[in-house]
Amino acid sequence: MDKNKLSDLFNKVKAGEVSVDDAVDRLKGLPFDDLGFAKVDNHRKLRQGYPEVIFCQSKTVDQVVAICENIAHKGNNVLATRATPKMYAAVKEIFVEAQYNEMARTITITKEEVKEDKGYIAVVTGGTSDMAVAEEATETAKALGNEVRTVYDAGVAGIHRLFANLETIQGARVVIAVAGMEGALASVVGGLVDKPVIAVPTSVGYGANFNGLSALLTMLNSCSSGVSVVNIDNGFGAGYLASMINRM
Amino acid sequence: MDKNKLSDLFNKVKAGEVSVDDAVDRLKGLPFDDLGFAKVDNHRKLRQGYPEVIFCQSKTVDQVVAICENIAHKGNNVLATRATPKMYAAVKEIFVEAQYNEMARTITITKEEVKEDKGYIAVVTGGTSDMAVAEEATETAKALGNEVRTVYDAGVAGIHRLFANLETIQGARVVIAVAGMEGALASVVGGLVDKPVIAVPTSVGYGANFNGLSALLTMLNSCSSGVSVVNIDNGFGAGYLASMINRM
Amino acid sequence: MDKNKLSDLFNKVKAGEVSVDDAVDRLKGLPFDDLGFAKVDNHRKLRQGYPEVIFCQSKTVDQVVAICENIAHKGNNVLATRATPKMYAAVKEIFVEAQYNEMARTITITKEEVKEDKGYIAVVTGGTSDMAVAEEATETAKALGNEVRTVYDAGVAGIHRLFANLETIQGARVVIAVAGMEGALASVVGGLVDKPVIAVPTSVGYGANFNGLSALLTMLNSCSSGVSVVNIDNGFGAGYLASMINRM
Amino acid sequence: MDKNKLSDLFNKVKAGEVSVDDAVDRLKGLPFDDLGFAKVDNHRKLRQGYPEVIFCQSKTVDQVVAICENIAHKGNNVLATRATPKMYAAVKEIFVEAQYNEMARTITITKEEVKEDKGYIAVVTGGTSDMAVAEEATETAKALGNEVRTVYDAGVAGIHRLFANLETIQGARVVIAVAGMEGALASVVGGLVDKPVIAVPTSVGYGANFNGLSALLTMLNSCSSGVSVVNIDNGFGAGYLASMINRM
Amino acid sequence: MDKNKLSDLFNKVKAGEVSVDDAVDRLKGLPFDDLGFAKVDNHRKLRQGYPEVIFCQSKTVDQVVAICENIAHKGNNVLATRATPKMYAAVKEIFVEAQYNEMARTITITKEEVKEDKGYIAVVTGGTSDMAVAEEATETAKALGNEVRTVYDAGVAGIHRLFANLETIQGARVVIAVAGMEGALASVVGGLVDKPVIAVPTSVGYGANFNGLSALLTMLNSCSSGVSVVNIDNGFGAGYLASMINRM
Amino acid sequence: MDKNKLSDLFNKVKAGEVSVDDAVDRLKGLPFDDLGFAKVDNHRKLRQGYPEVIFCQSKTVDQVVAICENIAHKGNNVLATRATPKMYAAVKEIFVEAQYNEMARTITITKEEVKEDKGYIAVVTGGTSDMAVAEEATETAKALGNEVRTVYDAGVAGIHRLFANLETIQGARVVIAVAGMEGALASVVGGLVDKPVIAVPTSVGYGANFNGLSALLTMLNSCSSGVSVVNIDNGFGAGYLASMINRM
Amino acid sequence: MDKNKLSDLFNKVKAGEVSVDDAVDRLKGLPFDDLGFAKVDNHRKLRQGYPEVIFCQSKTVDQVVAICENIAHKGNNVLATRATPKMYAAVKEIFVEAQYNEMARTITITKEEVKEDKGYIAVVTGGTSDMAVAEEATETAKALGNEVRTVYDAGVAGIHRLFANLETIQGARVVIAVAGMEGALASVVGGLVDKPVIAVPTSVGYGANFNGLSALLTMLNSCSSGVSVVNIDNGFGAGYLASMINRM
Amino acid sequence: MDKNKLSDLFNKVKAGEVSVDDAVDRLKGLPFDDLGFAKVDNHRKLRQGYPEVIFCQSKTVDQVVAICENIAHKGNNVLATRATPKMYAAVKEIFVEAQYNEMARTITITKEEVKEDKGYIAVVTGGTSDMAVAEEATETAKALGNEVRTVYDAGVAGIHRLFANLETIQGARVVIAVAGMEGALASVVGGLVDKPVIAVPTSVGYGANFNGLSALLTMLNSCSSGVSVVNIDNGFGAGYLASMINRM
Repeated sequence: MDKNKLSDLFNKVKAGEVSVDDAVDRLKGLPFDDLGFAKVDNHRKLRQGYPEVIFCQSKTVDQVVAICENIAHKGNNVLATRATPKMYAAVKEIFVEAQYNEMARTITITKEEVKEDKGYIAVVTGGTSDMAVAEEATETAKALGNEVRTVYDAGVAGIHRLFANLETIQGARVVIAVAGMEGALASVVGGLVDKPVIAVPTSVGYGANFNGLSALLTMLNSCSSGVSVVNIDNGFGAGYLASMINRM
Repeated sequence: MDKNKLSDLFNKVKAGEVSVDDAVDRLKGLPFDDLGFAKVDNHRKLRQGYPEVIFCQSKTVDQVVAICENIAHKGNNVLATRATPKMYAAVKEIFVEAQYNEMARTITITKEEVKEDKGYIAVVTGGTSDMAVAEEATETAKALGNEVRTVYDAGVAGIHRLFANLETIQGARVVIAVAGMEGALASVVGGLVDKPVIAVPTSVGYGANFNGLSALLTMLNSCSSGVSVVNIDNGFGAGYLASMINRM
Repeated sequence: MDKNKLSDLFNKVKAGEVSVDDAVDRLKGLPFDDLGFAKVDNHRKLRQGYPEVIFCQSKTVDQVVAICENIAHKGNNVLATRATPKMYAAVKEIFVEAQYNEMARTITITKEEVKEDKGYIAVVTGGTSDMAVAEEATETAKALGNEVRTVYDAGVAGIHRLFANLETIQGARVVIAVAGMEGALASVVGGLVDKPVIAVPTSVGYGANFNGLSALLTMLNSCSSGVSVVNIDNGFGAGYLASMINRM
Repeated sequence: MDKNKLSDLFNKVKAGEVSVDDAVDRLKGLPFDDLGFAKVDNHRKLRQGYPEVIFCQSKTVDQVVAICENIAHKGNNVLATRATPKMYAAVKEIFVEAQYNEMARTITITKEEVKEDKGYIAVVTGGTSDMAVAEEATETAKALGNEVRTVYDAGVAGIHRLFANLETIQGARVVIAVAGMEGALASVVGGLVDKPVIAVPTSVGYGANFNGLSALLTMLNSCSSGVSVVNIDNGFGAGYLASMINRM
Repeated sequence: MDKNKLSDLFNKVKAGEVSVDDAVDRLKGLPFDDLGFAKVDNHRKLRQGYPEVIFCQSKTVDQVVAICENIAHKGNNVLATRATPKMYAAVKEIFVEAQYNEMARTITITKEEVKEDKGYIAVVTGGTSDMAVAEEATETAKALGNEVRTVYDAGVAGIHRLFANLETIQGARVVIAVAGMEGALASVVGGLVDKPVIAVPTSVGYGANFNGLSALLTMLNSCSSGVSVVNIDNGFGAGYLASMINRM
Repeated sequence: MDKNKLSDLFNKVKAGEVSVDDAVDRLKGLPFDDLGFAKVDNHRKLRQGYPEVIFCQSKTVDQVVAICENIAHKGNNVLATRATPKMYAAVKEIFVEAQYNEMARTITITKEEVKEDKGYIAVVTGGTSDMAVAEEATETAKALGNEVRTVYDAGVAGIHRLFANLETIQGARVVIAVAGMEGALASVVGGLVDKPVIAVPTSVGYGANFNGLSALLTMLNSCSSGVSVVNIDNGFGAGYLASMINRM
Repeated sequence: MDKNKLSDLFNKVKAGEVSVDDAVDRLKGLPFDDLGFAKVDNHRKLRQGYPEVIFCQSKTVDQVVAICENIAHKGNNVLATRATPKMYAAVKEIFVEAQYNEMARTITITKEEVKEDKGYIAVVTGGTSDMAVAEEATETAKALGNEVRTVYDAGVAGIHRLFANLETIQGARVVIAVAGMEGALASVVGGLVDKPVIAVPTSVGYGANFNGLSALLTMLNSCSSGVSVVNIDNGFGAGYLASMINRM
Repeated sequence: MDKNKLSDLFNKVKAGEVSVDDAVDRLKGLPFDDLGFAKVDNHRKLRQGYPEVIFCQSKTVDQVVAICENIAHKGNNVLATRATPKMYAAVKEIFVEAQYNEMARTITITKEEVKEDKGYIAVVTGGTSDMAVAEEATETAKALGNEVRTVYDAGVAGIHRLFANLETIQGARVVIAVAGMEGALASVVGGLVDKPVIAVPTSVGYGANFNGLSALLTMLNSCSSGVSVVNIDNGFGAGYLASMINRM
């Protein structure tokens, strides 16, 4: 339930179109529904503009389905990240309109179209192996109504590949830079654009990469201004934040 | 030299008001001036909207003064971070209008007023000890033309102090959350607003704080959406990014 | 064998009701039984008020069964943690009264009811994924005779879910706060109650969570007073300590 | 302002002995006083039973004095930790009754005597070098009204020194075990008592001690039940928690 | 080939009992045999008193067999550590006298009995779970001719179990202390004996144990004198060194 | 397309032997071919003298085949590292001349023979277990046209094995030193030769090896001059760099 | 008071030469003297063969003097490590026979000559900078009655320097290998001798040495058998253990 | 004494121009001079082509002077790194020709000119603050006879500064890339040249830079081929290795 719907409700109450009891009924899910194992945060849409996203990792299939139902049955869109094919199959049985992006591991159920028309978000990756994380970011941003343009495998080892796509990158309102190994992409991109760059370190690599620590530290120490960092492999976080900024 | 000035110059050339030679002369500093020990990036204003900021740490007083002169004499505003009182004294001798924020350790020389009127940036700190970093963020954002409102010492150990200032925080277009020790502030704030939160871990604390590592990890792992992180104690980076977002 | 039984024995010896030889016989298990691969610490009940708990991880099924028998056949209650279903099946064959909590991975055999009536222990978790650890704490505290009330999925990203349960939390004599990811829950809870808070970091999360390191450091650096920390995922330790405090 | 005083006030208002305006006046400091750089948490006494303690590290002398005044002038006791001699001198000028424990680095101003008579807290250290942290714990616990008995330099390298003091240790209601280097003291003590043990790792040591990391990990991994851990060198935290438990 | 055999050979050459060519032939394997993938160090027995031990981890079954043959066919005893059952089966086909200790994961082939009669080595463990590492140490020390006495599951959480075996421990010429989790055993044992203590940290534990790091740091920081440390889980190294010392 | 071919092309255009359109056609792949998921860097051969090498880890079989085709169909040699047998099977179906080194996990397709005749590269390993990494280095260097001589299992624990091969090592133009565990090999070799030593730490070992961290730090801290280090297990990187130096 | 003295005392009591009261008086210091801030472990000489050594770091000058007096006045030798010149001056005023080794930072007071004549201990260092730690080891071993021979600056970067001193090293009964930076010395020495090698990592170095971590890991992962490790910079520990072994 | 001089000497002996005794006399310093605290490695010039370089850190002024004399009096050039002004002053008194580079902290004494004419080495830095390390590399390479060209402050945040100097960088035979903070420079440079790149991480930065760890990991994980890494701040090592490669 977003701010508009809420105002609408109050106006209707004021105008006598909706009884107080009915209004209370509609609102009673607020601020959260307690499923026992989970408290679904319905209030979030009011507070943050988008309903709670389901982080599926270390949840059971049943838990995921139950939370999906709770959200979707209120007419809200559903975005589930880190979802397994098995979870998707179970959700699909209930919601035929559910869609799965295998690489991104996301389930989406669209109850109402959302569309931002401010501009687009660019998602750039250092290598082919960073695509899974980039796709999670892309799916998230799209689910939140943004246009997304991707530039994959444009790492700094062959920097002309990056420059060949500079127009796409510089034309975006927000840039998400996804890179593993040494993660230098974020600094280089950060130096080339005048828009916020959200850096996503990935765990892609080996040896002294230490599961993404290397790229993480690189990005935190970026000598370019305008770069901030989210958790390793956190494509969702980057997509969500990019959308938040793009809406401004 | 920003985009407007540049267009202006080209228009004047076109109109015959400025000779080609003169135009070239004005532009010859582009893309950078080589001072030997430093290449001042004059192109940055064009690329990123604000001239190069001087990071004074591990530079000599003479180097800082030389870079200040190079920037200011082109009519650009100067922002120098991590500046010592000694550096300020030396700069002050040349630029009487230079100002020093002792807690923030910033020198500012204002050549032309900049003013954004989109809304304000909120800077929140967990404790009194985080103020130095918060002030660096504040000074940076102000130097870039933003209005800033501060809420200091509102950490989660006495969470009613945070709630008492919720209006200020929720009214901002961007929030900078500065905290040391366990750094939980960013997650709590992130859960309460629908605007981007830039988290700045500080090295304030002791023991298992490990010079800011604790707060850094906390913030990177934030379970709240819309939170991204900059380097430990990087008030400047937060202020710069916040300004970039606020301009959108 | 607890203090009361021991006094009782001595009194009986004194009164001539039990011969010295018999008394010695009953006590000969003290201070421990040597099973070769393990020395079952029968003395612990005297020293610490509860018989040795079996930590099943990296023990064989046979070893677990043997230790269960050793403890139970002296009439003591059994609590086995980190037990696999296979271990439970083997124990169940011998002790029909044995019970298994699958999520908590605990086996309990109750030989004598224990009941504290001082008040209850609250177990709060940040997310659904922290439930396994919370259940281990809960099972442990219950096995030691405590009443336990749980508040699951009340993390700080939607802090109103925590406040909605504040009464339960503030009414407890001891609070166990279980959280992964950034672990901010412990600090927030610690600031809201005037009772000891036992913080349990969990390994739930990914990336810069580093298998629980993030939550661990957060909790150790808590700016709230009255918070202490046990090992990552150590639900048992928290439940045991909470019971010890609740008995005071 | 504690619960009793508050009830008293309400009763007086009810009885007409205090006017509503006066009552409001007395309460207006609640929940905190905003000193600009700090928000003194007056509400804490109500919430947690003791007024805010001043953590002096990285505060200026003026800030410490100002907070002391704010607390003491409401008739509350003051406890300031990590205080320098300079801070003490400045506080002493205003409050002649202020006292300084040089080793503990604590300032105390006693406005009203508090006294718990439940039993005593034992503070045990591994070595002479751990005394500073132990004294901070001791001073804190005493300031909160507890009796404290200390057993210093009783580390496990000469374990008979520990056993010689076993009666003192086992007689306590809560034990604080303070140790640096390898920190084995907490485990050994934890195995010998049936009361909560609060382990405080210290940064005492060298080399692979890594500023207390060694003792910290040891204590977190303690194989003894009933042991929980606070931050490295956090004597205050241990003393505060011990007092909280001792009051139960 | 050890020193005695070598002197013998030279004496026989001198006495004309062995021709120079034959002598050269017998020695030609020295200093090593090159198997292509491995250079078997036959010289080691001369240099260090025992032929090369085979570290099987990350070797193929064929490689292990080939090295076994190379060593055994010179009449030397074979000790292979970290050997899988599969490796044992393959070796057993060639050497019927080969023996396997499943817990220790060692293969031994005895070509000539070795026997030290100086005294015995004590192997003490903190818990049942440390037995695999302890057995590796025991097998190694026995293979090198030492008497070994074991005291398993005598950790500091129930320190009376350790004291009950003090005589065995104090009677040894060298003590090997094997412990995981917090590893405090080494310090306590080190303080009780006047003989060298070889500490072996194990990776047994979870959470902040960090795969043995906790026990490793504890042991390195031991406040007891006479304690030195080998690598995590390095039972072989401890057994080898203990034997070296016991021979003195 | 290397520099010679390029000059040739321009000469032919100049001489009218190739039309401008044809020339453009041949060059249009430059600087890279965009396969969607990957941008194959054809320009690299010009820039760095050898076409892009395929790093197969975390790529799909289809992606690897597609990139192989893209490179080989331009007449360039193919080197694919970290290739699985499955990848090899798929590539083999298209390119019968493809070869697989199982230990090195490399696929090579030779389109044109390359041969350097400056001298040879020596690859030395500390143990048998380091061979996989050494073979990757060897295959890489050979694919780039170098003669390679290997000295395997020559670690410092039996240093005479190293000295027995000193001539081979000192005769090389570049030495690659591959070692796990403590990685001391690089320092010892570095002190014995007057040629560049490329040190490759391997993840071989256990315990405090921490997946190669130990060998990595050892090599970075080498007290021998002329030693530089590549990533843990990065045989390819060492072979590539060695070839680059050998060509000088 | 060592075993001989003790037996002597009992014999004298038996023979009536010493009254029981006098005997008790002489023994009453056992097992320790409580100085308040320290419990001097007089029992250690009986248990471990040498009286307690004073670790001066983070003790005050007064504390050091008091402990010296306590030990020396019983007729025991004193060894104080990590002693400052100031401490020495204060001790010297009371004990004119006190001696100071500035590089080793040790104070020694000799009350009775001790002399082992089993053989000598060799102390080898990698570089000149490791001498301080080596001297601490040397002084300790000498104070305990051992002959010590030193080979300084014989690191592996110029390995012929080591071989030139091989006779000295191989002739020792125990070898102490002291090295910073990459610490490869211990492995090389360990491969060359058939006696126990005690490895002492030093904090000498910079960068990725991380204050001795590099050398520590190297030594723990030593591929040579017979090597064990003490804490970083722990010359005392090495000297003490070497003496313990040499006495066997 | 290099190979030429040595051949010369032998020829003279052969020709009777130098007596055997005199020859022996000249050679007796080989392979090293033992100064007690240091063994000066005269053999190194023969083995590695350049006499031992003095690493002054943690040596005394007297030790540095003594080693300088030992080297220089044999007619060899001297290079001393990490030298303090005080050391220089002491050396200058004896060798008037000694020169000091304050930023690089190097002392050089030139006894014979060395000159390579193969090509030049490029030294590139990310920022002004990396200059000290770059100068150490430069001084070292020059002392070894190389031409060096520097490109300072060309970091990736303003990548056009790098491209403006591409010709200088691409024209070099070896490139040294010096960078702190995120160290991305090495990857970008590595992707642009076909010559070996020696990456030197510096400790310049703050926060999550962790004293150079960030840049170190970045460089080790470089996705560009042909990049190898030396220790943090190890300008000398880079210069030495670059010279070694440039001589090929």
